[in-house]
Amino acid sequence: MQTDIEIAESAKVRNITEIAAQIGLSSEDLEQYGKYIAKVPLDVLNKKGTKKGKLVLVTAVTPTPAGEGKTVTTISLIQGLAKIGKKVVGALREPSMGPTFGVKGGATGGGMSQVYPMWKIDLEFTGDIHAVSAAHNLLSAVLENNLVRDNPLNIDPSRIVWKKTMDMNARELRHIVVGLGDSKLNGGVTHESGFLITSASEISAILALSTDYADLRKRLESIVVAYTYDKKPVTAGQLGCVGSMMVILRDALMPNLVQTLEGQPVFIHGFPFANIAHGNNSVIATKAAMAFGDYAVTEAGFAADLGGEKFMDIVCRQSGIRPSAVVVVASIRALMMHGGADLKNPESFTADALAKGMANLDKHVANMKGYGMPVVVSINHFYTDDPEHIAMVRSHCKDIGAECVMSDGFLKGGEGAVELAQKVVEVLEGPKPELQFCYEDGLSVKQKIESVATKIYGADGVDYSPAAEKTIAQLVDQGYGGLPVCIAKTQYSLSDNAELKGAPKGWRLNVREVNLSAGAGFIVPVCGSIMLMPGLAKEPAALKIELTDDGKIVGLK
Amino acid sequence: MQTDIEIAESAKVRNITEIAAQIGLSSEDLEQYGKYIAKVPLDVLNKKGTKKGKLVLVTAVTPTPAGEGKTVTTISLIQGLAKIGKKVVGALREPSMGPTFGVKGGATGGGMSQVYPMWKIDLEFTGDIHAVSAAHNLLSAVLENNLVRDNPLNIDPSRIVWKKTMDMNARELRHIVVGLGDSKLNGGVTHESGFLITSASEISAILALSTDYADLRKRLESIVVAYTYDKKPVTAGQLGCVGSMMVILRDALMPNLVQTLEGQPVFIHGFPFANIAHGNNSVIATKAAMAFGDYAVTEAGFAADLGGEKFMDIVCRQSGIRPSAVVVVASIRALMMHGGADLKNPESFTADALAKGMANLDKHVANMKGYGMPVVVSINHFYTDDPEHIAMVRSHCKDIGAECVMSDGFLKGGEGAVELAQKVVEVLEGPKPELQFCYEDGLSVKQKIESVATKIYGADGVDYSPAAEKTIAQLVDQGYGGLPVCIAKTQYSLSDNAELKGAPKGWRLNVREVNLSAGAGFIVPVCGSIMLMPGLAKEPAALKIELTDDGKIVGLK
Repeated sequence: MQTDIEIAESAKVRNITEIAAQIGLSSEDLEQYGKYIAKVPLDVLNKKGTKKGKLVLVTAVTPTPAGEGKTVTTISLIQGLAKIGKKVVGALREPSMGPTFGVKGGATGGGMSQVYPMWKIDLEFTGDIHAVSAAHNLLSAVLENNLVRDNPLNIDPSRIVWKKTMDMNARELRHIVVGLGDSKLNGGVTHESGFLITSASEISAILALSTDYADLRKRLESIVVAYTYDKKPVTAGQLGCVGSMMVILRDALMPNLVQTLEGQPVFIHGFPFANIAHGNNSVIATKAAMAFGDYAVTEAGFAADLGGEKFMDIVCRQSGIRPSAVVVVASIRALMMHGGADLKNPESFTADALAKGMANLDKHVANMKGYGMPVVVSINHFYTDDPEHIAMVRSHCKDIGAECVMSDGFLKGGEGAVELAQKVVEVLEGPKPELQFCYEDGLSVKQKIESVATKIYGADGVDYSPAAEKTIAQLVDQGYGGLPVCIAKTQYSLSDNAELKGAPKGWRLNVREVNLSAGAGFIVPVCGSIMLMPGLAKEPAALKIELTDDGKIVGLK
Repeated sequence: MQTDIEIAESAKVRNITEIAAQIGLSSEDLEQYGKYIAKVPLDVLNKKGTKKGKLVLVTAVTPTPAGEGKTVTTISLIQGLAKIGKKVVGALREPSMGPTFGVKGGATGGGMSQVYPMWKIDLEFTGDIHAVSAAHNLLSAVLENNLVRDNPLNIDPSRIVWKKTMDMNARELRHIVVGLGDSKLNGGVTHESGFLITSASEISAILALSTDYADLRKRLESIVVAYTYDKKPVTAGQLGCVGSMMVILRDALMPNLVQTLEGQPVFIHGFPFANIAHGNNSVIATKAAMAFGDYAVTEAGFAADLGGEKFMDIVCRQSGIRPSAVVVVASIRALMMHGGADLKNPESFTADALAKGMANLDKHVANMKGYGMPVVVSINHFYTDDPEHIAMVRSHCKDIGAECVMSDGFLKGGEGAVELAQKVVEVLEGPKPELQFCYEDGLSVKQKIESVATKIYGADGVDYSPAAEKTIAQLVDQGYGGLPVCIAKTQYSLSDNAELKGAPKGWRLNVREVNLSAGAGFIVPVCGSIMLMPGLAKEPAALKIELTDDGKIVGLK
């Protein structure tokens, strides 16, 4: 069987100008990055009007470490909608190099359902993530430079909340001490600090949520970077380098256009990590997909309790975007894991495990229905799946009132998702749903956290560390209490404990710390033991990737 | 008067495909990055043959903090050679964001002598520097991951020599402690570390010195990252992630093609900072410029004692490239500074100061002649220059046997460098010079350092810190004693003390520490108080750059 990269290399793809032409963009409208990638400038997007296609959000059950095929399903749905004659445009997120060199691999789909070219998109792509890192670290460098230049803003070095960032899994940078040189001007001011992975930078969220350059500036200026000795917030605007950050981010705010292996246009813009970030693609890209397609398909990161919840409660709330249907992706393997099966032991893949694991699917489906959305369950088909198990899932979905289809995008591309596409179109022909947020703006910060914890995660309640309590009180004092919450927690459970599978009951959410993202427009409660900088696994993908002497990439997945 | 960016915005430039066509490259041969930038894949370069144009190296006197116009002169010389009907291709270095947001500004020339488009080249460009950062930091992350995964290579955490890197002036990262988490797997192993600016990363030098992917791999594998508890070197090859680093660097090894404001093709590839790095453009780009042009023009960073020396003793030694002539750029202001004038006080710009400051020019000219090169002195003309002072420099150059011309590339573009171009062509018609290295391979490490110190810098001798002594002895023991040296020292003096102007006498070079760059193929003696990570100035350029709401960049210089 061919690897993903071999399939991509032998694919018949067209120059990106031909793909752009399908949605009315000329080659003059594009900033090309090689033959198969282009950025679309914002003024071009603005000129092309705001026709409103119907938006489908693809989300998933709680995943296994390898994922359950959400991106494959999303891309196959785009390809499948085209197969049945629909004008469709995708809007996906940009992979981070962290997971690409970590365990999960890239994020460009797989098999016959990929965006092209994976070896560019999974790696440097058009440099958007690097631009976010640079803008983030410039702000940090200017802040630190203020400290050694008479500290005119009276910043307390022990209250610097703006850390540094890198798009790499580097656990040793989670907690560091900087400024150990032999004098202030030589080595900076000594204080504790650390690095986040770039996707978890507030600037990643700002880039994804901004609607234009003016909005980007306003958000960047609002970032709270530190507090003064008398505990007043210090913003990026006060540091005077937002113009330079804007210049660094200028091109990064333009969405990137690529194609699926079957030639549909897909905007790839905004970043992953819905566990530790908001983890959704950009508002600009989603709006562009809705403007250019009768159908727009987007994907939220990790399971529906993370990317799905954040799409509804943050992205839709801020942008006014409204989805018309939700696809929840599941695999029989993942459901069995939730019922107690051991992923390393095929003998544990029993009907009992499946029946029990369905609880996880049920919870995510109920959550999405709670948002007022019609739901289609898409089972990502593996050739090893037992027909009896498939029948069980179909029958179960009927019981819980969700449409259920099998999709086979990995092996068959769009052809494997025709049934899914037809079902989605059928659902979209129903009455337009009305989005119901999980919580309203007027609730307190704690009430918002508790709403998500109890309604979405299924917790009995929320416990706060003393530090979290203190920060929440301060944020409310400073007037940030009206913001929505963007909860950071493990992707491996509906709870904040990665070990609890299925739909855990009888547990409480532990809020360890709380961060403010005033520019992104949310508050980040960090739960359980989740880290904002991942580490590398024992055998990371970085050890299995090669470049041949003639420049061919091998082992990237 | 128009700013550089306004001049560039109103310039009549052509699509990069038209520029490429001038040197026989079709649009199919290119990987375009927008309309005005393209990467040229290595297989395309290999196919196009190895016709040997004559190479002119542009270097300079010891600069003022604002520089003395070396890049302006280099670009104007390219434009000037075209004006007199020559087929010319340039090969320059890629700017770093550090200086762009620091004091010096970008590095794309200025006035009517620029490479286009400065707002891309000075910032993200094609992501090459970011790729180096990513490859560097991936190697570091894999090393650190080894430490927490049973440390199979027996690495001594106190003997890790591979630090981290960022393309930003962040002095607080010079000296840090990493791995302060609450357990090994959570927070990594605690040890001292630090960040270099990316241009000073060994991988920057490796990228610039590699001739193809096989050479790149060999060099990356040879990087020494740490020592074991029993003091054996550990290489990147042993860590198993060189394939992934290659994949990250794949596109970065392809040179970038742009145009001057007057339409000549210029390859921009390889990085700046000849004070703390080797600071020359890439071997691949220089060879490409020589293959496609009858005349190739390249530039070495900072003054002739830094970029110039390293071009001759490292780049030419490793690559077999041979220049045919050297242009030494000077400005009357810079020479006056070397004679004691105060840059902030125009009244100190006297003929006496100029006469005295000429010693700096004399030393650099003599050094370049010592390499066997014919030398043309090019005075970068400022409209404030007094004709009497110009006459003094011309007369002085005659005395020291160097050709001397005025160039006026900033105000007049190629037209302002016609005299320079004619003089260079005249010199190139003379006998082909034979390059004499400053030192031969067979000398000891200390003899090599002493050769550069006494012959090029004018030192009386060299003093070594105990740490430097110890490292040199170890490197010799380990078999690295045959490598050339790439000395890091201040760019503001021929000596290792930035305060000493002119051509200082009666001083000794202080070698503070010594680093091995086994993959780049040199040893780095770090001298005086120079730092491998710059800091931001009190009023950095970062505070003066803006982006308008319609995406226009203002204040970039």
